[in-house]
Amino acid sequence: MLIDIMYCGVCHSDIHMVRDEWGGSIYPLVPGHEIVGKVSRVGMDVKKFKAGDLAGVGVLVDSCRTCTSCKQGLEQYCEVHWVPTYSGLEMDMKTVTYGGYSNQIVTDENYVLHISEKLKLEGVAPLLCAGITTYSPLRHWKVGTGHKVGVVGLGGLGHMTVKFASSFGAEVTMLSTSDSKRVDAKRLGAAHFINTKDDNALKQNKNQFDIIINTISATHDINTYVSLLKLDGTMVMVGIPPEDPSFSVSGLISKRKTIAGSMIGGMKETQEMLDYCAEKNIVSDVEVIAMKDINSAYERMIKGDVRYRFVIDISTL
Amino acid sequence: MLIDIMYCGVCHSDIHMVRDEWGGSIYPLVPGHEIVGKVSRVGMDVKKFKAGDLAGVGVLVDSCRTCTSCKQGLEQYCEVHWVPTYSGLEMDMKTVTYGGYSNQIVTDENYVLHISEKLKLEGVAPLLCAGITTYSPLRHWKVGTGHKVGVVGLGGLGHMTVKFASSFGAEVTMLSTSDSKRVDAKRLGAAHFINTKDDNALKQNKNQFDIIINTISATHDINTYVSLLKLDGTMVMVGIPPEDPSFSVSGLISKRKTIAGSMIGGMKETQEMLDYCAEKNIVSDVEVIAMKDINSAYERMIKGDVRYRFVIDISTL
Repeated sequence: MLIDIMYCGVCHSDIHMVRDEWGGSIYPLVPGHEIVGKVSRVGMDVKKFKAGDLAGVGVLVDSCRTCTSCKQGLEQYCEVHWVPTYSGLEMDMKTVTYGGYSNQIVTDENYVLHISEKLKLEGVAPLLCAGITTYSPLRHWKVGTGHKVGVVGLGGLGHMTVKFASSFGAEVTMLSTSDSKRVDAKRLGAAHFINTKDDNALKQNKNQFDIIINTISATHDINTYVSLLKLDGTMVMVGIPPEDPSFSVSGLISKRKTIAGSMIGGMKETQEMLDYCAEKNIVSDVEVIAMKDINSAYERMIKGDVRYRFVIDISTL
Repeated sequence: MLIDIMYCGVCHSDIHMVRDEWGGSIYPLVPGHEIVGKVSRVGMDVKKFKAGDLAGVGVLVDSCRTCTSCKQGLEQYCEVHWVPTYSGLEMDMKTVTYGGYSNQIVTDENYVLHISEKLKLEGVAPLLCAGITTYSPLRHWKVGTGHKVGVVGLGGLGHMTVKFASSFGAEVTMLSTSDSKRVDAKRLGAAHFINTKDDNALKQNKNQFDIIINTISATHDINTYVSLLKLDGTMVMVGIPPEDPSFSVSGLISKRKTIAGSMIGGMKETQEMLDYCAEKNIVSDVEVIAMKDINSAYERMIKGDVRYRFVIDISTL
């Protein structure tokens, strides 16, 4: 499928990849894996899309399709190889992929999502990474009514976690070091706000949460958050700090707590999330920028100065 | 209930407590929380035991009895206070408890276990701590036929993990830094043995295990073991290393892995385990010692020179 790209979200990983901060970046490099556009043309075997349809492309564009994970719709955990949307290798392990900071992309229909006409497209783009990364663990750990959910970090991932968890009926608490986030957290759907620098508040909320989604990708002390989990509670890491965090083993043992990781979502679940968002009118809060402003956008993101996702209007490219 | 103690297992935590290595030890201190004996006399309201019955006492001797955890039979996760068998405080928060390196102990019947006449009593004593500590997580994470279980560390806890997991029908692999453990691991029920210093073996076994029970209480790199877990696999920590271990977040995220902790077991589950052991003829491998040899036993334990638990014959006291 040939897709004319309309919007592309700017993910924090784009900065790491552009600057080769994780190693392994392949230059020349075209970032972008939160892509929304319109189908321009389709190959003769394409069944699921036709020219003119809206289409989305997320973090992965192919996988082995035959392993146990792929057959379960968990392509992101493919046991052979999955193909990143940019700066990765296709299944031939030779051809480099290029992402969404671009007018067009060619992708296999099995790795393209249907996008509803109902939603603002610029707000849909970040759902393809920030959205599914937070939707998937909330679904996997069966979050719903009666659950107390903590959210650490109010950025691209964090604001989507608050929206999803509250829409699932959970009682959401924003855990933040900054009181300035209080108003926004409540506007997004959080019932409570805890300033994690307030020792008294931490003490009062010890062993209270069923699940905490930790979206912070900076170095931080995770024991503070683990202490807030109740018996059998789970903290899910969806951000990757630059240094390996350490944890108190007795802190886990004392209430059979767990620390988990979760990565984006498979094609089936990503489509389910997009359909859910269309039904519930959920999109990302975005600031639309022109292509020429990308470098200053990166600088602002590093400072945390974006509410809550930059999205490039690709018509400005 | 007044119990005449016959055997008391020697747990590694006894050494830490005697030497106040964790802080908080209360002197004079009588260690021992793997207690097997015979009921001497019972109070007039005791219903479940009579004089002459065999009886066991484990790591805890009381709890609040009213919180959600206690009502679920999870007294070890009591939300108010649970009373350690020794060097702890009773529910009055004043009276000090004294443990099983002793001729007698007085305990509430609700915190005493029934012991079968079928098993060798010296082998039963360590079930009260080492046994339940490993049985409980294997049951909680529903280990059985078709599961691949890794066991890290072949000591008191590790050898019980191998016995239980293999008896549940799981395919057990001993993960050890020392080839000298190979023969014993297989004798205890392990189907496989991996020397974790062998990089090639680690590579071949990447993403293979459903669950790994980590019994090591020394400082060690846990990422080696996490890498062996498969999609949705869990490593359960049951030992407490002196330093907080660190973990690779991307290692967890890449296959939605989890790290958990688990602590002993509740009264109901401990009884279930003892009944299961009687049915399946499972006991701990022990070396019986006289009371006078306790100090040299501690020295040998610190060197790992015991297969796999010292048990004191209390008639020598």
